[in-house]
Amino acid sequence: MSHTTKIVNTIAEMSSITSIRNHEHKVGFVPTMGFLHEGHLSLVKAAKENCQIVIVSIYINPSQFGKDEDLDSYPRNFEKDVRLLTALKVDYIFFPSNEEMYPNGYKTWIEVDELSSILCGKSRPIHFKGVATIVAKLINIVNPNFMYMGAKDFQQIAILKKMIKDLNFQTEIIPCPIVREEDGLAMSSRNVYLSKEERLRALSLSKSILFAKKMFLNMETDPEKIIIKISEIIQQSNGKIDYVEIINPDTLQKETSLTNESRIVLAVKFGKTRLIDNDKIGL
Amino acid sequence: MSHTTKIVNTIAEMSSITSIRNHEHKVGFVPTMGFLHEGHLSLVKAAKENCQIVIVSIYINPSQFGKDEDLDSYPRNFEKDVRLLTALKVDYIFFPSNEEMYPNGYKTWIEVDELSSILCGKSRPIHFKGVATIVAKLINIVNPNFMYMGAKDFQQIAILKKMIKDLNFQTEIIPCPIVREEDGLAMSSRNVYLSKEERLRALSLSKSILFAKKMFLNMETDPEKIIIKISEIIQQSNGKIDYVEIINPDTLQKETSLTNESRIVLAVKFGKTRLIDNDKIGL
Repeated sequence: MSHTTKIVNTIAEMSSITSIRNHEHKVGFVPTMGFLHEGHLSLVKAAKENCQIVIVSIYINPSQFGKDEDLDSYPRNFEKDVRLLTALKVDYIFFPSNEEMYPNGYKTWIEVDELSSILCGKSRPIHFKGVATIVAKLINIVNPNFMYMGAKDFQQIAILKKMIKDLNFQTEIIPCPIVREEDGLAMSSRNVYLSKEERLRALSLSKSILFAKKMFLNMETDPEKIIIKISEIIQQSNGKIDYVEIINPDTLQKETSLTNESRIVLAVKFGKTRLIDNDKIGL
Repeated sequence: MSHTTKIVNTIAEMSSITSIRNHEHKVGFVPTMGFLHEGHLSLVKAAKENCQIVIVSIYINPSQFGKDEDLDSYPRNFEKDVRLLTALKVDYIFFPSNEEMYPNGYKTWIEVDELSSILCGKSRPIHFKGVATIVAKLINIVNPNFMYMGAKDFQQIAILKKMIKDLNFQTEIIPCPIVREEDGLAMSSRNVYLSKEERLRALSLSKSILFAKKMFLNMETDPEKIIIKISEIIQQSNGKIDYVEIINPDTLQKETSLTNESRIVLAVKFGKTRLIDNDKIGL
């Protein structure tokens, strides 16, 4: 039986496809910025398993990039993305233009207070305002029952869950596990920025997280001691630490006492490339 | 044939009722803060004429009141409201608590830039942020095809239309004409605040607007001259002018040259009571 993957460029067409909600057809949605890797594809597979209609958006959202960030150089390969998504029998690829998403005179923004100004929000002050706004738009356009998102963007998921709850959007985020390269590096479209040498040094991120998990397993209960050890490992690899924290997974506040679910989160620069990674401290 | 009007207190129940959209049943929604008058009822009647399911919300939204405003004294009469809505065969009255709408730790806000900081936004700086946020929540909860709103809140409608367009909400605002008392005063729940003497003086609002429309009909094309005349009439009644403007109905910017659709908008205080009124300058 043949299957077609349809590319949709307009909001009007996309929203008409899913405007009628019913019980028989669940819509699963995977928002992406394209340049897809195995991490994205794992989200698509999860959506295909649980939903009758699967939609993937490919849109590099300018409003979540700061002025000095990598909007212009962000990697893209639409042809390959379409090939990958067609092979996975995705039903629709939503691929809108900037004019379609932010027409002249655009004025409306969503902010999730507190959660957006800490961690990545400290060095990227407008980032999560842009993320919250574009995801609200995509929810309204795609009308999904479930949204599949990668746990690598841990703070992003926490902020979007909060937005969905606060604004009563009738959708649910399904977080999926981080997909890693064989050597442990968390997959990211931005990994292509790394030189061979930076790529090697960046392994300190997953290694330091693994070391932290072992410390916790060995009964270390002081978050500060674990954070210091993580920082040491990263500094030995010449990574420039933006932050290393152990936080509550819901409130994103620093943990004073650890549970299995306490989350190690970190952001580190290697050269010009800023990478993030995270894991829960327990097994 | 008997008809029941059901009162719904929870978001979960309300959203489950309209979560399934179909082509046969259009949902019409009238958001209110209660203490209903003929203006509100005209919206309900318009909804009943065009929709198979009609929902009215009664919720005094605290986030749209400034610290020194009348949140505590805002008039309410739920029993009478229910009686009126039952007589009009409304299907559901959504009547949530503050705990239901803004639970502990609420953090998400929507802002429509520029449009929210002018006119009423100047003297009520947080007002439209609260309005935009609560209406986004209500849209997500009620999932209406059409929202019926009174033209008295002209700036509010312009801001909400912009929010709906920018965030791609799949709903449409149907503005309905201002309903006036026989002597011309625009109906408002806040009119009960007026003393007998203030109530008389407040007639200068509709009178000044009528005078402005006559000036335009008599070929006056200079907005400034018309604004001066309106202001004179209001000042003669000892009204304290917050603003008097003639604006473009979409951008809300001051008109330099007038069209039939140019909008006279004004806000004036009589004693402690702030009233607004508006009309298009043409016939």
